[in-house]
Amino acid sequence: MSHNTFGHLFRVTTWGESHGPAIGCVVDGCPPGIPLTEADLQPWLDRRKPGGSRFVTQRKESDTARILSGVFDDGDGPVTTGAPISILIENEDQRSKDYGEIARAFRPGHADYAYQAKYGVRDYRGGGRSSARETASRVAAGAVARKVLGEAVRIRAGVTQLGPHRLDQAAIDFDVVYDNALFAASADSVPAWEAYLDGVRKAGSSVGAIVALEIDGVPAGWGAPLYGKLDAELGAALMSINAVKGVEIGAGFEAAALTGEENADEMRMGDDGRPVFLSNKAGGVLGGISTGQPITARVAFKPTSSILTPRRSVDRDGNEVDLRTKGRHDPCVALRGVPVVEATAACVLADAFLRHRAQVG
Amino acid sequence: MSHNTFGHLFRVTTWGESHGPAIGCVVDGCPPGIPLTEADLQPWLDRRKPGGSRFVTQRKESDTARILSGVFDDGDGPVTTGAPISILIENEDQRSKDYGEIARAFRPGHADYAYQAKYGVRDYRGGGRSSARETASRVAAGAVARKVLGEAVRIRAGVTQLGPHRLDQAAIDFDVVYDNALFAASADSVPAWEAYLDGVRKAGSSVGAIVALEIDGVPAGWGAPLYGKLDAELGAALMSINAVKGVEIGAGFEAAALTGEENADEMRMGDDGRPVFLSNKAGGVLGGISTGQPITARVAFKPTSSILTPRRSVDRDGNEVDLRTKGRHDPCVALRGVPVVEATAACVLADAFLRHRAQVG
Amino acid sequence: MSHNTFGHLFRVTTWGESHGPAIGCVVDGCPPGIPLTEADLQPWLDRRKPGGSRFVTQRKESDTARILSGVFDDGDGPVTTGAPISILIENEDQRSKDYGEIARAFRPGHADYAYQAKYGVRDYRGGGRSSARETASRVAAGAVARKVLGEAVRIRAGVTQLGPHRLDQAAIDFDVVYDNALFAASADSVPAWEAYLDGVRKAGSSVGAIVALEIDGVPAGWGAPLYGKLDAELGAALMSINAVKGVEIGAGFEAAALTGEENADEMRMGDDGRPVFLSNKAGGVLGGISTGQPITARVAFKPTSSILTPRRSVDRDGNEVDLRTKGRHDPCVALRGVPVVEATAACVLADAFLRHRAQVG
Amino acid sequence: MSHNTFGHLFRVTTWGESHGPAIGCVVDGCPPGIPLTEADLQPWLDRRKPGGSRFVTQRKESDTARILSGVFDDGDGPVTTGAPISILIENEDQRSKDYGEIARAFRPGHADYAYQAKYGVRDYRGGGRSSARETASRVAAGAVARKVLGEAVRIRAGVTQLGPHRLDQAAIDFDVVYDNALFAASADSVPAWEAYLDGVRKAGSSVGAIVALEIDGVPAGWGAPLYGKLDAELGAALMSINAVKGVEIGAGFEAAALTGEENADEMRMGDDGRPVFLSNKAGGVLGGISTGQPITARVAFKPTSSILTPRRSVDRDGNEVDLRTKGRHDPCVALRGVPVVEATAACVLADAFLRHRAQVG
Repeated sequence: MSHNTFGHLFRVTTWGESHGPAIGCVVDGCPPGIPLTEADLQPWLDRRKPGGSRFVTQRKESDTARILSGVFDDGDGPVTTGAPISILIENEDQRSKDYGEIARAFRPGHADYAYQAKYGVRDYRGGGRSSARETASRVAAGAVARKVLGEAVRIRAGVTQLGPHRLDQAAIDFDVVYDNALFAASADSVPAWEAYLDGVRKAGSSVGAIVALEIDGVPAGWGAPLYGKLDAELGAALMSINAVKGVEIGAGFEAAALTGEENADEMRMGDDGRPVFLSNKAGGVLGGISTGQPITARVAFKPTSSILTPRRSVDRDGNEVDLRTKGRHDPCVALRGVPVVEATAACVLADAFLRHRAQVG
Repeated sequence: MSHNTFGHLFRVTTWGESHGPAIGCVVDGCPPGIPLTEADLQPWLDRRKPGGSRFVTQRKESDTARILSGVFDDGDGPVTTGAPISILIENEDQRSKDYGEIARAFRPGHADYAYQAKYGVRDYRGGGRSSARETASRVAAGAVARKVLGEAVRIRAGVTQLGPHRLDQAAIDFDVVYDNALFAASADSVPAWEAYLDGVRKAGSSVGAIVALEIDGVPAGWGAPLYGKLDAELGAALMSINAVKGVEIGAGFEAAALTGEENADEMRMGDDGRPVFLSNKAGGVLGGISTGQPITARVAFKPTSSILTPRRSVDRDGNEVDLRTKGRHDPCVALRGVPVVEATAACVLADAFLRHRAQVG
Repeated sequence: MSHNTFGHLFRVTTWGESHGPAIGCVVDGCPPGIPLTEADLQPWLDRRKPGGSRFVTQRKESDTARILSGVFDDGDGPVTTGAPISILIENEDQRSKDYGEIARAFRPGHADYAYQAKYGVRDYRGGGRSSARETASRVAAGAVARKVLGEAVRIRAGVTQLGPHRLDQAAIDFDVVYDNALFAASADSVPAWEAYLDGVRKAGSSVGAIVALEIDGVPAGWGAPLYGKLDAELGAALMSINAVKGVEIGAGFEAAALTGEENADEMRMGDDGRPVFLSNKAGGVLGGISTGQPITARVAFKPTSSILTPRRSVDRDGNEVDLRTKGRHDPCVALRGVPVVEATAACVLADAFLRHRAQVG
Repeated sequence: MSHNTFGHLFRVTTWGESHGPAIGCVVDGCPPGIPLTEADLQPWLDRRKPGGSRFVTQRKESDTARILSGVFDDGDGPVTTGAPISILIENEDQRSKDYGEIARAFRPGHADYAYQAKYGVRDYRGGGRSSARETASRVAAGAVARKVLGEAVRIRAGVTQLGPHRLDQAAIDFDVVYDNALFAASADSVPAWEAYLDGVRKAGSSVGAIVALEIDGVPAGWGAPLYGKLDAELGAALMSINAVKGVEIGAGFEAAALTGEENADEMRMGDDGRPVFLSNKAGGVLGGISTGQPITARVAFKPTSSILTPRRSVDRDGNEVDLRTKGRHDPCVALRGVPVVEATAACVLADAFLRHRAQVG
């Protein structure tokens, strides 16, 4: 996790701005011999890509990924070679327009002011580097990571809270997430949530949400204490997703109100001679190392900052202004955040897998 | 953040086990010319050290830090030289005892099973490397980080929720934290909280808590998007503290229920010609970069896993056992976590400061 | 320096294979506000590009670099924004051909066998990732690094030994290097060297060479002892260039035969009140830190491994074969290595500059 | 390789100054389950420690290493646990003396001026951090690395050139190196070399030397192209040793004078069905990856900078001074550099081994 690279061994470097000619990433450190084509990337990108429903931005991007390096077909189909995999996605719908007001004014809730303060210059076209468009690169990298992990590791996420509407734990069903336009982890909630989000959308407003993540199939032992703890790495990677303001593992913030008795995940011997946990307050991670239980996390997204309601702000010249953000925006940025959460987790896990293999064999 | 090192430029490597001869750290990358003696470290260590009240472990450790390298006195008092600063803290109260049961059985909620599964061997004496004793090294490193940051940056934390008892936002007062044995961020709450925690303690139980963090004085511009975002780095570092299960920045998980209008921190021009934010839902970080507002975060600690109530578990040989953890333990590990949270944040900020200076000058 | 990324703060990640669709790099960590366009890259790429004389490969590549991200024109011309700079160079002359023999046989002196042994798969088309074509990406990155360093730092290299023909120290003149087809650091040597290399070339043979490097204008203080010493970083980066087998700094291997008296660079006070060194056996680096003297190094290149003379080898199937390498090759790969050495040094120095600024301000 | 840490997965952080209370290192990332006690470290430290003959400094140090963490004895003897291994070596013979002149004046050839220029402060006692005393820490770390590598990998070095006296390639015998006080790789050379070095020593002078390195038993496939090439990593690590001014791999600088025909290491099939190289100009590394051949390198050491002959210099106050370095010094610093070269190579290889295992399994 340094500048625009994350990962220690499975390393992903992303680049590109919202309204530049293209975005992309370089995935380095991938094991060799893994079958990989662009067709392996596209389904995941399609889940994140804009324009799929009225609940996401109407920007038109095919998000077609091209692999420019790192795979080779020696007769049995393209496989990774161990060399860096460069993936490029062209920007297709960077509308030429007058950025007049936004070029100088700082949109509240956006990174505009912070970028200007840090760098003294900023690419204000669609948010430039700070745009969530970057997450397409992560999704592409995550697709590679999934291939490294193999099918035994299953990574699933879904919206479990939309604004004030929260699913009961028992209602959560990750299998339905990509079957509804809200990426909701419950089919039953969809009609009411759609009605609610339609209201938000028509009001030119936006709303936050919580995305839950569940990972099955990670064996006990991944993670590198103390500062490369699996939960710390997941925490950092998820927190680095646009609009994320909180991450919790297992019982998370609710653990603060538990007693030691309630929080202890007791163990018994399973039929296969391996320990079985009787609960999963730990969220599959103890001491920074996976326990073999499902890894569970929840990620809080703030509402999209771009709204039609005018907000008070200032500009680069010190003027006070009122700003409303026109254009194409997601009423709830967390929705398309679901595949991003999954992809980010996949990258963290692929890295943890390789690091574990390095140290322990 | 790699294995036992954290930081990119201000780099802290810690080492040592709970019941070994000593613990310590190496702080590398420190700027030269900063006055530094052991007296600068000790007050912070004293805040974390055990034995200070009935609410913390009765293990007796003076936690006396020795500086073995990296400072030099050329006549005007010891200053940092730019070379690595090695800090050593001897373990003094590693009671010689029979670890018989714990040597083989996995204590629920502890890292025992995960370490065994990963490494095939574990130092079970007091939790070995996974013991919270390691946090003394962080606190020492954090004291150095504070010197790097200078007095303009003020880092304060305190307990704002103890088990089910939560402070109102308005009641939070970080100035009283080190004046009460509970590290509570409200003097008024102390009597009731003490009574509550006495009950927990006498029952041989434990409870979780939430520690709030507030950092003033960080100028706009620190942080390195996209994967070295200031909030991502803070998230990882705080999540790497023992027993932490969740981290949120600014409005955090509550942001999920906000609308864009509510979440937008509006801006006006201040009298000094600099922008003023009218709220701080962002927690002082936008796009991964500090905005000049106070940086606010909350950290969820799970309850201490060591409790007197027997819990079901298994051992290395596949036997099912009932375990109760005797010995000296904190009824709420979050209390002494307060100076650890501060120190960890200090290290992250010192690193962010140096990285910002590198790129932007 | 990790996998395909080098640098700590000024970080360059390269990707691409000799006969893939493109090669490129991502330059991350660049300071903001530096004017940068493709026209700043092209002159350096032109120096390295193939086809310029009969002494280099006849592969036809325009080596046109496109900048895809990280610069923005806010009205005063494009400047760096602090975001990653993605540079793409399309491969234009990847001849479609039958790789039959090379696909299975290991060319002596090439990385074929090592790649196959490591990865179990290799892109054999033109050497794939191990081809010197990758160095075009370094040269592009080096052009960015030069902008970071500014004009005060002057980096020059040239061939000072071609096969058995070695220049006297007194004859070395870096100003003529790009005025002759041999990149020779002496105009006088060119006619004889051309005649010699013509003989090598017509014989289908190849020859090694030494490239000297001299860097002026680096102030005292750059470098990060002990393991990020400036000479160690230069050593690693230069050694990572294709075909390089040795690196020496200052007096280098000759220092082994010197006495302490001969090797000591004595100092006097200069007219400007700053120390002046009376010699430069150290090559501008002491204790891993620049002294303000010119930084001098020499780099040994082995001969191009691709030659027409058949060499004995084996193939993937365990057969013994005789191999001659047809196709377009440089008779002396060190020639086009000159701009690569310069670019690599520029990247190391830009990184050292930022790191020094971080720690010392 | 960053500041005072080297390695990516097998990571060594060293600390300490020549005349401070102690020096030491933290070895992180070590695989678990490896038997390790202080007795495994001491023989290697004894080879490097001062006072062993009239040809090395008369400083008295037992160089006794203590292991403070990272090993645990669960009944079958101490083994590594995967946690960081902290090693401490007390300084015993830091003579209390008046550093008056050296405190202000810059000794030619030493790092004094460079450190002062960089940091504005320096620990001038015995060279402080820049003293070769640091190499004891490397040797301790190298002993751990050797345990990671196992006995199949054999790392040997020896002096092959002492001042102007150079061994023929055919005369080199690494088995005798630790049987003579000169660490010479030829028993026959010892009498003449001793007479020569006695003369140097009695004259209060010093001389440089070349140390050759040969590593057997590394399988094909280690190394991580392109910027973590095995030879680049070795080059950096060896170049970071005090007084080293040059590193070459295989034929090294002589490769510059070779033709492609001469340089090609031809291959045939061996009786065991694996390729056999007919020569080793490559020094066991092609394309940055080991080939299975012995890895060969040569390292040039400059003469010890501390000599009795007065040299012209300047001091911190701008005065011109004449300096002679009294005290205890090695007439040829390369001699004790032999175990340091070996240890440094061991660390690089242990890291390469883990990285290879990570990516390829």
